[in-house]
Amino acid sequence: MAACRWTGAGPNDSEGQPLGENGERLHAWMFRRDGQHGGGPEPADAQVVNGLFACVGAVLMGRRTFDLGLRNWGDVPFPAPCFVLTHRTRGDLAMGNGTFTFVTDGPVAALRRAEAAASDRDVAVTGGAVGRQCLAAGLVDELHIHLVPVLLGRGVRLFEDPDAGPIGWRSPEVTQSPQVTHLRYLRP
Amino acid sequence: MAACRWTGAGPNDSEGQPLGENGERLHAWMFRRDGQHGGGPEPADAQVVNGLFACVGAVLMGRRTFDLGLRNWGDVPFPAPCFVLTHRTRGDLAMGNGTFTFVTDGPVAALRRAEAAASDRDVAVTGGAVGRQCLAAGLVDELHIHLVPVLLGRGVRLFEDPDAGPIGWRSPEVTQSPQVTHLRYLRP
Repeated sequence: MAACRWTGAGPNDSEGQPLGENGERLHAWMFRRDGQHGGGPEPADAQVVNGLFACVGAVLMGRRTFDLGLRNWGDVPFPAPCFVLTHRTRGDLAMGNGTFTFVTDGPVAALRRAEAAASDRDVAVTGGAVGRQCLAAGLVDELHIHLVPVLLGRGVRLFEDPDAGPIGWRSPEVTQSPQVTHLRYLRP
Repeated sequence: MAACRWTGAGPNDSEGQPLGENGERLHAWMFRRDGQHGGGPEPADAQVVNGLFACVGAVLMGRRTFDLGLRNWGDVPFPAPCFVLTHRTRGDLAMGNGTFTFVTDGPVAALRRAEAAASDRDVAVTGGAVGRQCLAAGLVDELHIHLVPVLLGRGVRLFEDPDAGPIGWRSPEVTQSPQVTHLRYLRP
């Protein structure tokens, strides 16, 4: 099973500003440090994040997400094997909680490798382009959207013409917190 | 007060297919005719629609929405005065439940005229381009999104680079039905 979790970003994303201008507002709910809830996220948000971490058995991401994200993460983004889809191969990169493996044989083969590594848990697909490729290929079973009430105006769109014709989902599970609306869509 | 309610569409919208290819799936929740609920929408959806109709005192739309929508509506889309923003002026068009008035002096002036006509009720801004212009000008107080679980792949985007810098909203009121997730955003 592949669960797709991907992220838009503001304009001008770079290694120093991996989510682009104002893009950190899209993730602030995950890292609240205002002391109201022990310095972490709201309880409802924490429950969503914990649920996500519990079900992820492997990660698939694009090279650009890896390049922009690594310094910020300082480790693998989930404590699981991470597969990075790339045109420029390189050796494995072992981190504290998992290893980055670089794969060059396209999104479908990369997803199959990640699924094998995840065993009975989910593959989290993260990063815009890879997520859209998997979506267009009909390989995504769940879509997790964390909808933050801000219009950035410009930047990286979540759904940039996936070119997959209409794809229908079931009505989502909704978890609402003061910061964010979590929508979990399953295939019919 | 301006409440913005606008609609994406599938590709190749035209008078015969005003919501574009597969775009009718975005509105099916409003017109269900499967007999399960007396031939109309689900009760939760009916309540949202009735609330919308009760608070709309005038409508502002673009010329393209008028041109593509008129045949389908057969009347004004809400029982209220409707202002159509256009570059090509023409005389008023009286329908059964209200009159279309064509205005050429730009979105801000058009919105002011609609607000005067609406008195203490809301102006519904409908149609992509006019909605985005009002949003970029900071004139939208509420955003009503009816989120249907289908990815059309191509078509008219709801937020096509409003170019207004980040705009923050309060956490939405969520009304969930089996067909659609209604999100009502207010300005902070």
